[in-house]
Amino acid sequence: MAGFIYVVGIGPGKEDGITKEAEKVLQQSDIIAGYKTYIDLVRDRFSDKEFFENGMTKELERCRKCIDFALEGKNVALIGSGDSGVYGMASPMLEEAKKVGFDKVKVIPGVTAALSGGALLGAPVGHDFAVISLSDRLTSWELIEKRLRLAAEAHFVMVLYNPSSHNRKDYLKKACDIVLEVLPEETCCGIARNIGRDGQETEIMTLRELRDTEVDMFTTVFIGNLDTRNFGDYMVTLRGYREDL
Amino acid sequence: MAGFIYVVGIGPGKEDGITKEAEKVLQQSDIIAGYKTYIDLVRDRFSDKEFFENGMTKELERCRKCIDFALEGKNVALIGSGDSGVYGMASPMLEEAKKVGFDKVKVIPGVTAALSGGALLGAPVGHDFAVISLSDRLTSWELIEKRLRLAAEAHFVMVLYNPSSHNRKDYLKKACDIVLEVLPEETCCGIARNIGRDGQETEIMTLRELRDTEVDMFTTVFIGNLDTRNFGDYMVTLRGYREDL
Repeated sequence: MAGFIYVVGIGPGKEDGITKEAEKVLQQSDIIAGYKTYIDLVRDRFSDKEFFENGMTKELERCRKCIDFALEGKNVALIGSGDSGVYGMASPMLEEAKKVGFDKVKVIPGVTAALSGGALLGAPVGHDFAVISLSDRLTSWELIEKRLRLAAEAHFVMVLYNPSSHNRKDYLKKACDIVLEVLPEETCCGIARNIGRDGQETEIMTLRELRDTEVDMFTTVFIGNLDTRNFGDYMVTLRGYREDL
Repeated sequence: MAGFIYVVGIGPGKEDGITKEAEKVLQQSDIIAGYKTYIDLVRDRFSDKEFFENGMTKELERCRKCIDFALEGKNVALIGSGDSGVYGMASPMLEEAKKVGFDKVKVIPGVTAALSGGALLGAPVGHDFAVISLSDRLTSWELIEKRLRLAAEAHFVMVLYNPSSHNRKDYLKKACDIVLEVLPEETCCGIARNIGRDGQETEIMTLRELRDTEVDMFTTVFIGNLDTRNFGDYMVTLRGYREDL
């Protein structure tokens, strides 16, 4: 009988950032599959498991491999950091499963960087917000620009994923320039680096300063709205509570 | 010496939806404070704790009470369902703490309904998305309408929180009408009810059908974009993976 494929978000990386449900699923699985960097986050704790790891850009192959394992009767945990849905493997896994009529896939959520990085910074996403990836690997840069502009006009707090990579060193600068057409230079912004991992740090700054800040692919960027304040140690988007409400 | 205040997101409600970190913080706290409905979710598991509960609209009083407890030397866990940041208590707690110069507040994230409901539905938030509350208690309806319209124009997947209440029975209908000015009637949508609690259920439907669906305050609503598909059991926003990418 075929096993199950669980697409599991393991949270920000540190051992206790995972949900109890996700931890249980990993414990009960026969094989843990994923991108090498994510496997490294759990390898020691689950050393009794079989692992299948492959590289970035090999996502579809990874999904098909999981189906093969499940058809052999094994329970598979396909893991990723953060949430399993948000820029995660749940979407391609469900798509590949549908193609071959495999219907034993379950999705287990996790704490995505907008939340884990948000908690480190205080409460930047206390109200309506938009999550945007600056990676143009699967999305056109034109659409990314449009989303940045409309999100700024809508006064969404923005959380930017994948703000940089080897080939996209100036993407955050380009993104800030678009937002600066709508929002003031002093808009409160923040970054969270290496969330839940060695070298974890946060920084709070203005939108103008963010424009000239170098970030790497392990950084999550938060752009506030007109209700976002720099409280020194914290970046907080006010919710508008008043005594009479 | 003053204790710490931990603002803790306990996830969707079921016992294993909480992160290991949040569970540990609750175990180590002296007092668990929160809105009554959330306290009820953890009361049995933490029966050795002291509890402070009060009602909706009493958020600021709750925060000040937490500061009082901490100043008495107690460690306080101020809990809420989902994430501590997203429409949660982290923002008002940090604001009240700043007013009185209390600086021992830590924010512990949790799995918000966009993620837990998303996992039940499959992968609706597989790509860029916007989270919007339809509650006009602290936000003007005009701003909510503007955000809905711009989010639709930007082709964000949308997750709607607080889609209904006693005084706002037709707000989801009004929201859908705005989105329908931009997106086609057959746009794939979904709802998740009572996530992680008794009566949990999901439903996938078109935007046109969503417009005429009755929801309550324990429902989270997902509006897809042009890349979102109804796979029968699942609502999946395609990420655009191709073999050659």
